[in-house]
Amino acid sequence: MSEIAKTPEPPYYAVIFSSHRTKGDDGYGAMADRMVELAANQPGFLGIESVREDLGITVSYWDSLESITNWKKNAEHREAQRLGHQKWYSSFRVRVARVEREYGI
Amino acid sequence: MSEIAKTPEPPYYAVIFSSHRTKGDDGYGAMADRMVELAANQPGFLGIESVREDLGITVSYWDSLESITNWKKNAEHREAQRLGHQKWYSSFRVRVARVEREYGI
Repeated sequence: MSEIAKTPEPPYYAVIFSSHRTKGDDGYGAMADRMVELAANQPGFLGIESVREDLGITVSYWDSLESITNWKKNAEHREAQRLGHQKWYSSFRVRVARVEREYGI
Repeated sequence: MSEIAKTPEPPYYAVIFSSHRTKGDDGYGAMADRMVELAANQPGFLGIESVREDLGITVSYWDSLESITNWKKNAEHREAQRLGHQKWYSSFRVRVARVEREYGI
C-alpha cells in the first residue's frame, strides 16, 4: 500500500476516496485490510494507493466504469460500506474520475 | 489541508500527485507550503487535499484542463517542479483525471 501504483497507459479510471475516521478502531483496521485484498482480486483492478494522517486518501485504479460498479456492488464490500456510513467515517467523499494523462519519474 | 475539499458538481478535474520523498527537508517544507498558497490563488483552483506517511498523495481540483496547464506553466511552480525532480522526490506520478461523479456524507 505504500508503493505508487503501476498503472497502464491512460485512459483508465480512478476512485478517489477522502475521509475522516471516527475515534477508535472498532473493526476498521481488519476490514480495511480485507477490502484491499478483495479489491485486488476484482476484475479490472489496476492498483491502489492509500495514506492517512488526520485526513485519509485512498485512490484505487480500475480499467472501466463497469469494473467500479461491480466492485461497488460486491456483497462483502457493501457490508463494509454500510458499516463505514454507520460507524467508521465521520465524513467522506468519493470521486470517480477518468485518468487522461499520466507522467512521472 | 486536512479538510476534505468542497468541490462543485462534476464535471471538473483532479490532479493526483503520488510521491516518495528523498531524505531530509532541504527547503521542501517551505516550498510545499508556498505551492499550496500559490495554487489556491490560481484561476480555476477548486481545492486541495494532501496526506503523507511514507507515500504522499496530494489531490488538487480544477475547473478545466486549461487551468491545470496554466498552473503547470506558472514560473514559480516550474522552479518547484525542477527542484522536485532534482532533489526532493525519489519517485512520483502525476495523473490528470476528469471527475465524473461525486458523493459522500
